Amino acid sequence: LKSKLPAVGTTIFTRMSQLAQQHGALNLSQGFPDFPAEPRLLDALNRQVLAGRNQYAPMPGVPELRQQISRLIERVYGVQVCADSEVTITSGATEALFVAIQALVRTGDEVIVFDPAYDSYQPAVELAGGKTVHIQLCAPDYRVDWAAVERRISDRTRLIIVNSPHNPTGMVFTDLDWQALADLVQRHGLFCISDEVYEHMVFDDRKPQSARQYPALAERSFIVSSFGKTFHVTGWKLGYCTAPKLLSAEFRKIHQYVTFSSFTPAQYAIAELLDTAPQLVTGLAAFYQQKRDLFQQLLSGSALRLLPCQGTYFQLVDFSAVSTLDDVRFCDWLTTEVGVAAIPLSVFSRQEQDSRIIRFCFAKQQHTLEQAAARLQALS
Amino acid sequence: LKSKLPAVGTTIFTRMSQLAQQHGALNLSQGFPDFPAEPRLLDALNRQVLAGRNQYAPMPGVPELRQQISRLIERVYGVQVCADSEVTITSGATEALFVAIQALVRTGDEVIVFDPAYDSYQPAVELAGGKTVHIQLCAPDYRVDWAAVERRISDRTRLIIVNSPHNPTGMVFTDLDWQALADLVQRHGLFCISDEVYEHMVFDDRKPQSARQYPALAERSFIVSSFGKTFHVTGWKLGYCTAPKLLSAEFRKIHQYVTFSSFTPAQYAIAELLDTAPQLVTGLAAFYQQKRDLFQQLLSGSALRLLPCQGTYFQLVDFSAVSTLDDVRFCDWLTTEVGVAAIPLSVFSRQEQDSRIIRFCFAKQQHTLEQAAARLQALS
Ligand SMILES: CSCCC(=O)C(=O)O
Ligand SMILES: CSCCC(=O)C(=O)O
Repeated sequence: LKSKLPAVGTTIFTRMSQLAQQHGALNLSQGFPDFPAEPRLLDALNRQVLAGRNQYAPMPGVPELRQQISRLIERVYGVQVCADSEVTITSGATEALFVAIQALVRTGDEVIVFDPAYDSYQPAVELAGGKTVHIQLCAPDYRVDWAAVERRISDRTRLIIVNSPHNPTGMVFTDLDWQALADLVQRHGLFCISDEVYEHMVFDDRKPQSARQYPALAERSFIVSSFGKTFHVTGWKLGYCTAPKLLSAEFRKIHQYVTFSSFTPAQYAIAELLDTAPQLVTGLAAFYQQKRDLFQQLLSGSALRLLPCQGTYFQLVDFSAVSTLDDVRFCDWLTTEVGVAAIPLSVFSRQEQDSRIIRFCFAKQQHTLEQAAARLQALS
Repeated sequence: LKSKLPAVGTTIFTRMSQLAQQHGALNLSQGFPDFPAEPRLLDALNRQVLAGRNQYAPMPGVPELRQQISRLIERVYGVQVCADSEVTITSGATEALFVAIQALVRTGDEVIVFDPAYDSYQPAVELAGGKTVHIQLCAPDYRVDWAAVERRISDRTRLIIVNSPHNPTGMVFTDLDWQALADLVQRHGLFCISDEVYEHMVFDDRKPQSARQYPALAERSFIVSSFGKTFHVTGWKLGYCTAPKLLSAEFRKIHQYVTFSSFTPAQYAIAELLDTAPQLVTGLAAFYQQKRDLFQQLLSGSALRLLPCQGTYFQLVDFSAVSTLDDVRFCDWLTTEVGVAAIPLSVFSRQEQDSRIIRFCFAKQQHTLEQAAARLQALS
């Protein structure tokens, strides 16, 4: 069997989590919380399961959940989204990204992605017959140079994939970024996939911002979010995509043959929580800012240099004062010898990088962060 | 946006379930049980949720579940499957089918499917750039003529998709069918996707049979099954694919970018049930045979003519003594006027059919079947 994805191996997230487990390391690599989810959410799920909500959900998702998403979007962004025709529930944001890419990309199409980039974009584009065009963002602040982006647009460019707040760098788009993007998309007749899975985790008095607030952009965008990240249940694999009606119709045609629908009881449970405890969402920024601040403070004075973190639950650090290893080898060493697992930055870029930067996930209990920092403080 | 799937509308299952709901009809259309799942399963799920199993499962699925699948396969088929390298958990059988098709099919490839066919095969093949070649099976027994199949194999034929027990007809492959298939696949160097989601529902002293029992076939096959169907929880969207190690490796490369992983707590819960109550699986045939027999008996003497049902939880009936409507219109009428929803057979075939046959799902409580039959007995 000739491989459809010859370049792909096991994801770095799987590899580092396995290595962490084998060596009993504190796992700050793969992005997931190590603290329990809201008890009311677990209780709601259990009630829904016992109430017998165990058969197929409607293909676009249960109406109650789509309604709550529409209300949340209005509350956070002041934008109207039609629950019936513009919101589709998916089996995680990963499925939403995959389906949106399948809906848009045809053989020979070019897709602009920003490196460092989440690892699923490129294989999904390639499976659809497209080709990714990589624009490298650079330390320390990883800002986009929109004029440079425009120079990379060709006749074949169909789609631009953006991700703000940005994994792995923590960079957050400004209003000017969104405007420049909207302008590009409109003038060149592109489509946009806006991966907003960390939308509620923005720090230092930033407000959540979304492609949906820019009408010229919104009308050509698939916007993807994740309840796994927002409600600390990454294993529930529940996300959603919003897009204008005609785009959503194409999205659903594909979704119905990729997974058809997603775990029903969780859809009802999350609808219930969004209805009764929306402050769990709107309070997420403060919750994670406190963790970021704690982690940064715990590492201050160490040999690791902290890079800025405006959003997400990831912190980049430069280890060049500690080691001359490359970042991949350093992460292996850190996991096996120091007992703290992290993700090397270079794996997020296509271009070979001489990187001395790694990513920690700080979605962890205070105790975990303290233990990890104690080990990292010992580096010199 | 030019559609990637121009011919696709809303699935018949969604349309009929909606119509049933709008008109308060008994829903014997979309295939799902209307009775509660095993209480021990629901209890196991709830315990796993409260125990905090709410973060990402490993990409190929939790090891405990893969181990139990391997044991089940050995118990039922006497075949060894490696839990580590040959079993992958998916978000429903739909995802497994989609991923297997993506792993195999390239632009220009031909894929043989048997009509009537489950509705996801063709769009999944087309999204991968392939073309389906349709072989029509015919009433009343819908057997495959393997010599005729061989005549449709061309240089471009890459894959053959089979489904036994067969939805919607209830036809079950014999040993001779499996042998003929194995022979064709081997002689022509094809691959096979064997959709075995109804594997445990075979009647009249048939034994479950699987592509995995025929080594020449198994080595070139992706075999797909569904816990939603086996455990009466279609909304849990948990299925799996087994394939030889090298095929599984390609399958996982794609799965990791389609959904990455599936709802974690359900994986642990089903592993627990497979361990402690395997008779729930091995007793499924008797459970559904009782329902089939009841439903057939309740309809005997009616104007509807029953077709043979060897497996699955579907019963075909010929309504030509009742109406001259085509099957699509008859199903609409039956739902809105008689209060029983069914699925028209013709939608499962590409070829225009002059069909007077419809499909009922008998995965229903005795009371539902009795009520439905009472309404259907009134037809004349
Ligand atoms: C699906 S595993 C990857 C989790 C994640 O989003 C990350 O660690 O970046
Ligand atoms: C995913 S909805 C279809 C359910 C089913 O398998 C059927 O009714 O044939």
